[in-house]
Amino acid sequence: MEQTVWKTLLQAVADGKLTVDEAAARWKLAPFEELGYAKIDHHRALRQGTAEVIYGEGKTPEQITGIVSAMMQAGQRSVLITRLSPEAAAQVGQVHGLDYRPMGRLGIVGPLPEPDGLGTVVVASAGTSDMNVAEEAAVTAEFLGNRVTRLYDVGVAGIHRLLAHAEELMAARVVVSVAGMEGALTSVIGGLVSCPVIGVPTSVGYGAAFGGVAALLSMLNSCASGVSVVNIDNGFGAGFLASRINHLGGNT
Amino acid sequence: MEQTVWKTLLQAVADGKLTVDEAAARWKLAPFEELGYAKIDHHRALRQGTAEVIYGEGKTPEQITGIVSAMMQAGQRSVLITRLSPEAAAQVGQVHGLDYRPMGRLGIVGPLPEPDGLGTVVVASAGTSDMNVAEEAAVTAEFLGNRVTRLYDVGVAGIHRLLAHAEELMAARVVVSVAGMEGALTSVIGGLVSCPVIGVPTSVGYGAAFGGVAALLSMLNSCASGVSVVNIDNGFGAGFLASRINHLGGNT
Amino acid sequence: MEQTVWKTLLQAVADGKLTVDEAAARWKLAPFEELGYAKIDHHRALRQGTAEVIYGEGKTPEQITGIVSAMMQAGQRSVLITRLSPEAAAQVGQVHGLDYRPMGRLGIVGPLPEPDGLGTVVVASAGTSDMNVAEEAAVTAEFLGNRVTRLYDVGVAGIHRLLAHAEELMAARVVVSVAGMEGALTSVIGGLVSCPVIGVPTSVGYGAAFGGVAALLSMLNSCASGVSVVNIDNGFGAGFLASRINHLGGNT
Amino acid sequence: MEQTVWKTLLQAVADGKLTVDEAAARWKLAPFEELGYAKIDHHRALRQGTAEVIYGEGKTPEQITGIVSAMMQAGQRSVLITRLSPEAAAQVGQVHGLDYRPMGRLGIVGPLPEPDGLGTVVVASAGTSDMNVAEEAAVTAEFLGNRVTRLYDVGVAGIHRLLAHAEELMAARVVVSVAGMEGALTSVIGGLVSCPVIGVPTSVGYGAAFGGVAALLSMLNSCASGVSVVNIDNGFGAGFLASRINHLGGNT
Amino acid sequence: MEQTVWKTLLQAVADGKLTVDEAAARWKLAPFEELGYAKIDHHRALRQGTAEVIYGEGKTPEQITGIVSAMMQAGQRSVLITRLSPEAAAQVGQVHGLDYRPMGRLGIVGPLPEPDGLGTVVVASAGTSDMNVAEEAAVTAEFLGNRVTRLYDVGVAGIHRLLAHAEELMAARVVVSVAGMEGALTSVIGGLVSCPVIGVPTSVGYGAAFGGVAALLSMLNSCASGVSVVNIDNGFGAGFLASRINHLGGNT
Amino acid sequence: MEQTVWKTLLQAVADGKLTVDEAAARWKLAPFEELGYAKIDHHRALRQGTAEVIYGEGKTPEQITGIVSAMMQAGQRSVLITRLSPEAAAQVGQVHGLDYRPMGRLGIVGPLPEPDGLGTVVVASAGTSDMNVAEEAAVTAEFLGNRVTRLYDVGVAGIHRLLAHAEELMAARVVVSVAGMEGALTSVIGGLVSCPVIGVPTSVGYGAAFGGVAALLSMLNSCASGVSVVNIDNGFGAGFLASRINHLGGNT
Amino acid sequence: MEQTVWKTLLQAVADGKLTVDEAAARWKLAPFEELGYAKIDHHRALRQGTAEVIYGEGKTPEQITGIVSAMMQAGQRSVLITRLSPEAAAQVGQVHGLDYRPMGRLGIVGPLPEPDGLGTVVVASAGTSDMNVAEEAAVTAEFLGNRVTRLYDVGVAGIHRLLAHAEELMAARVVVSVAGMEGALTSVIGGLVSCPVIGVPTSVGYGAAFGGVAALLSMLNSCASGVSVVNIDNGFGAGFLASRINHLGGNT
Amino acid sequence: MEQTVWKTLLQAVADGKLTVDEAAARWKLAPFEELGYAKIDHHRALRQGTAEVIYGEGKTPEQITGIVSAMMQAGQRSVLITRLSPEAAAQVGQVHGLDYRPMGRLGIVGPLPEPDGLGTVVVASAGTSDMNVAEEAAVTAEFLGNRVTRLYDVGVAGIHRLLAHAEELMAARVVVSVAGMEGALTSVIGGLVSCPVIGVPTSVGYGAAFGGVAALLSMLNSCASGVSVVNIDNGFGAGFLASRINHLGGNT
Repeated sequence: MEQTVWKTLLQAVADGKLTVDEAAARWKLAPFEELGYAKIDHHRALRQGTAEVIYGEGKTPEQITGIVSAMMQAGQRSVLITRLSPEAAAQVGQVHGLDYRPMGRLGIVGPLPEPDGLGTVVVASAGTSDMNVAEEAAVTAEFLGNRVTRLYDVGVAGIHRLLAHAEELMAARVVVSVAGMEGALTSVIGGLVSCPVIGVPTSVGYGAAFGGVAALLSMLNSCASGVSVVNIDNGFGAGFLASRINHLGGNT
Repeated sequence: MEQTVWKTLLQAVADGKLTVDEAAARWKLAPFEELGYAKIDHHRALRQGTAEVIYGEGKTPEQITGIVSAMMQAGQRSVLITRLSPEAAAQVGQVHGLDYRPMGRLGIVGPLPEPDGLGTVVVASAGTSDMNVAEEAAVTAEFLGNRVTRLYDVGVAGIHRLLAHAEELMAARVVVSVAGMEGALTSVIGGLVSCPVIGVPTSVGYGAAFGGVAALLSMLNSCASGVSVVNIDNGFGAGFLASRINHLGGNT
Repeated sequence: MEQTVWKTLLQAVADGKLTVDEAAARWKLAPFEELGYAKIDHHRALRQGTAEVIYGEGKTPEQITGIVSAMMQAGQRSVLITRLSPEAAAQVGQVHGLDYRPMGRLGIVGPLPEPDGLGTVVVASAGTSDMNVAEEAAVTAEFLGNRVTRLYDVGVAGIHRLLAHAEELMAARVVVSVAGMEGALTSVIGGLVSCPVIGVPTSVGYGAAFGGVAALLSMLNSCASGVSVVNIDNGFGAGFLASRINHLGGNT
Repeated sequence: MEQTVWKTLLQAVADGKLTVDEAAARWKLAPFEELGYAKIDHHRALRQGTAEVIYGEGKTPEQITGIVSAMMQAGQRSVLITRLSPEAAAQVGQVHGLDYRPMGRLGIVGPLPEPDGLGTVVVASAGTSDMNVAEEAAVTAEFLGNRVTRLYDVGVAGIHRLLAHAEELMAARVVVSVAGMEGALTSVIGGLVSCPVIGVPTSVGYGAAFGGVAALLSMLNSCASGVSVVNIDNGFGAGFLASRINHLGGNT
Repeated sequence: MEQTVWKTLLQAVADGKLTVDEAAARWKLAPFEELGYAKIDHHRALRQGTAEVIYGEGKTPEQITGIVSAMMQAGQRSVLITRLSPEAAAQVGQVHGLDYRPMGRLGIVGPLPEPDGLGTVVVASAGTSDMNVAEEAAVTAEFLGNRVTRLYDVGVAGIHRLLAHAEELMAARVVVSVAGMEGALTSVIGGLVSCPVIGVPTSVGYGAAFGGVAALLSMLNSCASGVSVVNIDNGFGAGFLASRINHLGGNT
Repeated sequence: MEQTVWKTLLQAVADGKLTVDEAAARWKLAPFEELGYAKIDHHRALRQGTAEVIYGEGKTPEQITGIVSAMMQAGQRSVLITRLSPEAAAQVGQVHGLDYRPMGRLGIVGPLPEPDGLGTVVVASAGTSDMNVAEEAAVTAEFLGNRVTRLYDVGVAGIHRLLAHAEELMAARVVVSVAGMEGALTSVIGGLVSCPVIGVPTSVGYGAAFGGVAALLSMLNSCASGVSVVNIDNGFGAGFLASRINHLGGNT
Repeated sequence: MEQTVWKTLLQAVADGKLTVDEAAARWKLAPFEELGYAKIDHHRALRQGTAEVIYGEGKTPEQITGIVSAMMQAGQRSVLITRLSPEAAAQVGQVHGLDYRPMGRLGIVGPLPEPDGLGTVVVASAGTSDMNVAEEAAVTAEFLGNRVTRLYDVGVAGIHRLLAHAEELMAARVVVSVAGMEGALTSVIGGLVSCPVIGVPTSVGYGAAFGGVAALLSMLNSCASGVSVVNIDNGFGAGFLASRINHLGGNT
Repeated sequence: MEQTVWKTLLQAVADGKLTVDEAAARWKLAPFEELGYAKIDHHRALRQGTAEVIYGEGKTPEQITGIVSAMMQAGQRSVLITRLSPEAAAQVGQVHGLDYRPMGRLGIVGPLPEPDGLGTVVVASAGTSDMNVAEEAAVTAEFLGNRVTRLYDVGVAGIHRLLAHAEELMAARVVVSVAGMEGALTSVIGGLVSCPVIGVPTSVGYGAAFGGVAALLSMLNSCASGVSVVNIDNGFGAGFLASRINHLGGNT
């Protein structure tokens, strides 16, 4: 993962150019770069061990392009843009080389890293229409340095489809389970595996699905242990957390 | 099932004691017996093909005893009392011979009938704490003339428990699926069988279970077809409906 | 109903070309055909006794056309597409012969089957604006081999309209009751008939109708026994379940 | 109705003891009698044409007794106490002559007036367990000078019970329709009569009845015109409003 | 009001052309005219004492035009169309002479009747943005034969505005109180007048107004007696009910 | 207000016993006293300008007594205990001199301070049953050094009661408006005064009051400007905030 | 602030042109100017100490222009228009000189006043997307005569950003804290400062943010004292209240 | 962790007493021991790598004692009982040696294991009243073999309390963040650390806390990445998941 500012500071200390106190002070001062519409927090990588990701929703293509430029100039090698519409992607792509994934609505500037996570992240989804959210989780995990196995369309109405992938599930270090409607997939997976399971309810469904509330409640009440939940449609959050878990080393 | 009033009327017609019109008129006149606190509808058996059942909740033991007496005098052979507390059961039992089932909180006056349903009703429940509602469904179905197979504690957190009973499930003519918390059992069963599945959400759970709402929404959004739902904790309603379906003959 | 794969397997067993174990194995292997956006489950017909139906919402005309083609090539005689917009129907219709029903937003590829259900399915709806959902239920039931009687605009505000059809209601083997707003129709019908009643709340209404929640709650709390409920606007689910019930033979 | 203060003032004017202005001033000054725990508004009768009623819930028997005493001394002939528990009634009854109605939990001090309303108030209720609220409405209406016809246990699951009373319903000047669970009674009555219908949802029911919310929503969405609704379990409010409507003379 | 069918029947009886039984039978037979998309209930006027009103929402201009034509041919003198968009009004207006009110979105075909209600209906509204719903109530009441006084923009944030109209309020036979946001107007009016008050919550507001729910709850919990409530934005229902109350004669 | 620790520190600085840095450091070190069940934050007075108040709910009398003792030993002159049941008060009163207010359920140890707020805090409440919460607000404000005017039982159903106190309301520096049910009082007051108004919804009411939600939503949607809201039944929070506003000096 | 009408009246009294009673009467008569769509309340400035502000949502540019004109002719020096779309602003700007702020969607006609508030209003917001609401609060406060310090993008996920501004926060006389999603910013600020904090939940977020409900509940339950809350997205209300508090002088 | 059955099976294979197939078969057969009220799943340890835990709520002391006995006889060394009331604990303690923790309501039979987790689990809680749930999480984690650091009473209203423990937080391998009311603690911690954070909303609070819903929504919407959530009050689930994460080795 990107920790260039952190390393630069450490190096400066090692080189005798900064005292430890000076380095700590610079960290604390948090030199936000004022773009007018957002304070880019270059130090977040230091504090939390990961690169900045741009939440594209509600930002104009111009704003996104500007933030990406500022990040790249600050030494960021790759940038992930979530919730990026095809139209915005087209505009951003004219300025920065952009790998755009319509399924998942993600844009990637710069190369994907080599996987350095310790195991495999499995992203399972219940139905065709959950795939957008599942891809947001999967690509986020890949962007953050994880090997990802996708198991899509394995909803519980045809339980044999899921069981046919029992081996892949059991080999996972962490599972992201994406499901709308009644969200039962997450409970069933939670009962099958012995690794952490992150449930992502989706807003797929109609009527009493209430925009993902049914799936959310279902997952929160899962009878299986080892399951936790993120916000409705929050594929990014699930992929991010999966990456954190998958990077937890044995020597902590 | 009890249809004695109906048969009495028919017999009177067959015997020439009533014309068809007179019989129809008596049916339409609906001779309610006024007890002061409830109109016992002896003719409901005629209109709907089943006997009256007493909903015990909120009725005093004296009221229940009175209603049972009136029913028995009207020719009813057996009476089912639901939501009957142990204390009330003790009092009712001093007047009428009562077969009381603490699990399910049901009281039966008179003999259970021989099963005359066409197939088997399977009642499946997810956890130990759902058994009260499951028993309400199962005994109701038995009271209404059905063979019942009970599959309890087959929640999806240990999916193999459920799959171990796949044969019994597939042999069912109708399945009642009882589950609290996230209610995923119903979707999984719905995907396994090809007969009607009646979901009964239970108020089991805490926090975001919201007294059965999570399970209710889960079942309403089931991705499996052939599933319908009754009110939270409504074991009686599920057993009653299962009986109706199980008595649907081939010659209708 | 379509059970060609099943019969092919059985025939192969009868002809000595497959052992029983081999046939079972092929059933278990579930040869999903990967189209990229959905796993078509040709075996669902085997497990659940019915053909695949395409849920059109959120699928592009291209995807729908592709799935239909794959199904037809796999031996499916007819395909039902639900939630199909007129625009998508126009596109699909250029590839496959399509019987499109604007009221109900359904598309049918291939012939409707001869009714083989044992009785009649009555679809009753409360108001003009509930007709879309009612048609989804009615055509689904017809597609699955049922005789259907439609009773539309029989809401309880003019109870005599409904009572004028008492005979048709009482002759039904199963009733689908479609109602928005306060959904009272379902309770009244539930009190009149002695067959299973499937309530379908619709999102018709405004203000405190809350997109169908008022009708949903009303039906779940029906004081009439024998009533169960499916999701808001889920005409397909009701028609499917009605068909299942209507195909339950006497010799099960 | 009680308008003694009003009349006293008018008389004083007629007798020349007060000028019109002085009388108006006294009305405006509103001489609240301070009891410490409530300001009894003796003039409300003047402004709104009715006597004060005590809402018993949350008041101690001592407080209730005190308020009654103050009211009687101020010239009030009769007092109605709602939500009065049997225990509190016993205590109040030791000080004031009390006509206590356990069904409805109402206490009446002083005589009931002769009916002076112009027509009949019909109070209809769906089930046995709704009778408490229905009685609160019925006795309130009687206390305020109305003839009341009670139609209890006429729920829509047995629609013929209700229709058997069509004549009484159609003869009403205003109908109070009390129902819990799905509250369908109110819509059906609303479709039958041509007078105002006041719906009172009750908290009767369980599960998805949500303490009366299902019935409340049902009534608010009634497809029948001429229906309005009061708060859940608010039998008093319905009886009060029915009385107002029933006292609207032709010469207004 | 329109009661031509009723009168025709009565006249036929008076003329000896129909026996009383025959007339009653024709009433019971309810000769619905089938238009395909709606059963026009010409007899509703008989049963409920008022003319049919068309709920325009969700109907095409063609459907509306067709229903109006059928009604006029059946002898209806005037027709009210609610929830009529300007675009639909333009189309309907090409076929039928139409008095269209953009504020309130109402269309009137035929003349408004002379007021025959016994008193005055006051329609009060809290803010400028509630005027649409207030006009729906006011014009409905006028259409049904009532004198209407409009008090608009008298919200409680400037209580003196409301109090300045105390006289008009107190002279009302029934008040329709229209308010969005917190809906406090209805309680204040309920405390001022001694006639029935019909509260109409509107969906005006944002955030925690929840589309009218805040106002709805506020009105249902009104501390003032004599208040009842109709559905959110249901100006028509309030105007209709107000008319019913205002037509209640002294000789009932 | 109590600022003894603060003053001690300042004095030590003035006396040359602590440098400014040392004093700042001691403030930052925050020497929590560990009682096992709660960290008493003696420095909160420094940071926020007020004394610690004990939230009595859920604490045992022993715990409360212990915390009071620790506070008094730390130099606190007076302590306020909220949500203190009469039973707990009796026990606490055996150890510490306690001024217990049953109405409001508050206990005061030590003397009430002289008012040092700049103006008057008016606490207005709608009904008798709101007085508990109103007293919690009023006594809290008094405890924190404010003159308080109580206007109780001035609900909007009798608007003249409220208007009779217009002068006191307009003389307030801040108004706390306490109301349950529909909470309309707050909007009316908000329209009358030109000082800040703090709304406190109470859980008083039944049915659609939903435990204070109706009043809460009503206040949040107040059409009057200058109104803000605290949690349901949070009399303490309102009194505390009122005190803060009332202590804002002219020379800030 | 604008109090010209008030002063005019007072002057007339001082000059002997009006008696005190006549002046009071004119105030009470409230000479509303009828524009047809709104009663402009020129006296509100008198009663509440501030100028009229136009809520632009749902008003046509023509209506806004008309109201502004009427206000200016009545002697108003400046007018603030909230919720003004860019399109409407363009039209209004052709008639009146308009200072339009796209961020915050506010239009100002006439000059901003010199700050006359006693201290500083700090407006803090959690994220970039909350800035619209924050600006509505900030500009409203400026329009009403306050010095405003903006602290934007100081969400709690990077708590050091907020702490870096501790000094500005602690120097505030009142803080407006604007936050969507989980709204935690308000609690943290509430724990840091000793002045009143006004929380403004925003509708920013998705899924379980429920359009601002999560943030609203979070703020209402703030564990910090001194916090109160206004409606979701109600930046104007917060700015208005902050101004009121900031103008409370020492000599009240 | 306990894996004795698994090891026994493996050993039998190693010893040649069972073939691999036989062992697999025994695993698949899942020899449930029927106690009548629950199927103890001795193999769950095999499938999921942990021992059975008894959820005490709703079970009688006799049932708990019976389950514990069966578990111990099946070779389980230690058993954890959650939601165990003091009364039940007293009874269970008469049969089995029981280490009962009133804070957290947990009972432990048998010794706690040596910690074998790779890092430290930090359990942080916001207030005194959240400690019950926090202890449920902490003891569960200890029971499952983890070192636990407790940081209690570090709510955000005194942010310096939390920051004083920044070092311990940053040294954690996983943090369980327990908070009621507004639940802001979880977001703040999520912004400070770079390890997974598990939020546990508690039902602590009143009014608009809605039994934990406010905290739940707050956590689901956390602006900090790396946060996931379990059910309200589900301390066990959080402790269990924390243990899973803390046992993820480097060599997976």
